[in-house]
Amino acid sequence: MKEQSRREFVKKGVGVGIGLGLSVNAPKELFVHHVYFYLKNPDSMADHAKLLEGLNKLAKVPTIKLVHIGTPAPTNRSVIERSYSFSWLCFFNNLIEEEIYQTHPIHLKFIEEYSALWEKVIVYDSVGPKR
Amino acid sequence: MKEQSRREFVKKGVGVGIGLGLSVNAPKELFVHHVYFYLKNPDSMADHAKLLEGLNKLAKVPTIKLVHIGTPAPTNRSVIERSYSFSWLCFFNNLIEEEIYQTHPIHLKFIEEYSALWEKVIVYDSVGPKR
Repeated sequence: MKEQSRREFVKKGVGVGIGLGLSVNAPKELFVHHVYFYLKNPDSMADHAKLLEGLNKLAKVPTIKLVHIGTPAPTNRSVIERSYSFSWLCFFNNLIEEEIYQTHPIHLKFIEEYSALWEKVIVYDSVGPKR
Repeated sequence: MKEQSRREFVKKGVGVGIGLGLSVNAPKELFVHHVYFYLKNPDSMADHAKLLEGLNKLAKVPTIKLVHIGTPAPTNRSVIERSYSFSWLCFFNNLIEEEIYQTHPIHLKFIEEYSALWEKVIVYDSVGPKR
């Protein structure tokens, strides 16, 4: 595919399938799971490192199609929420594969081993793309 | 790349570069911009359609590497926030390219034409991957 075509493809929201093992003809159900973790001790580098260790283990759940672990960017406008410690973004093929992730032993073990570190999580699950 | 290798690649958070025009060796700065739109009239199908029209125009900003437009999934646990109308997820190569997006004429026109539709937006900007 030529670069221009690929770009347009990506822009239409279909391109999320490229390289992610999804069918480019059937991305309707793409499931975006985005979790923001708020540590009990946000200033503790040890707690940061510990949760990051846990997230890297969690990334091994087999139904995850794409994972991105981030921290707040330096952007700081009034509409930007930036008091979380970690952003955990996952793509799944569909709701069923996200449900498999939720109850997967790796996920259950992650919660058991690391949940004492966080004060709260906020989760946004969205499906699409919408066109 | 064999499927197994590609999977592992994706799992390590490096795979976000695949197919997105990013160098797989330099994804350190990947910038994830996630906006949740709350409509003034969340039950208005017309307002939904209008904002979706605007988001599809906004998707043409050239520095956007991946865009996903979603709506709340049917999942409904207590930690899940699902009262927004649209999820707008974009990947950028870095902060500078996100700043170009913020001030791009297409973005400014989007705000001018469509901001009357929403009551609020919540924005999460994160950078990574962290490993």
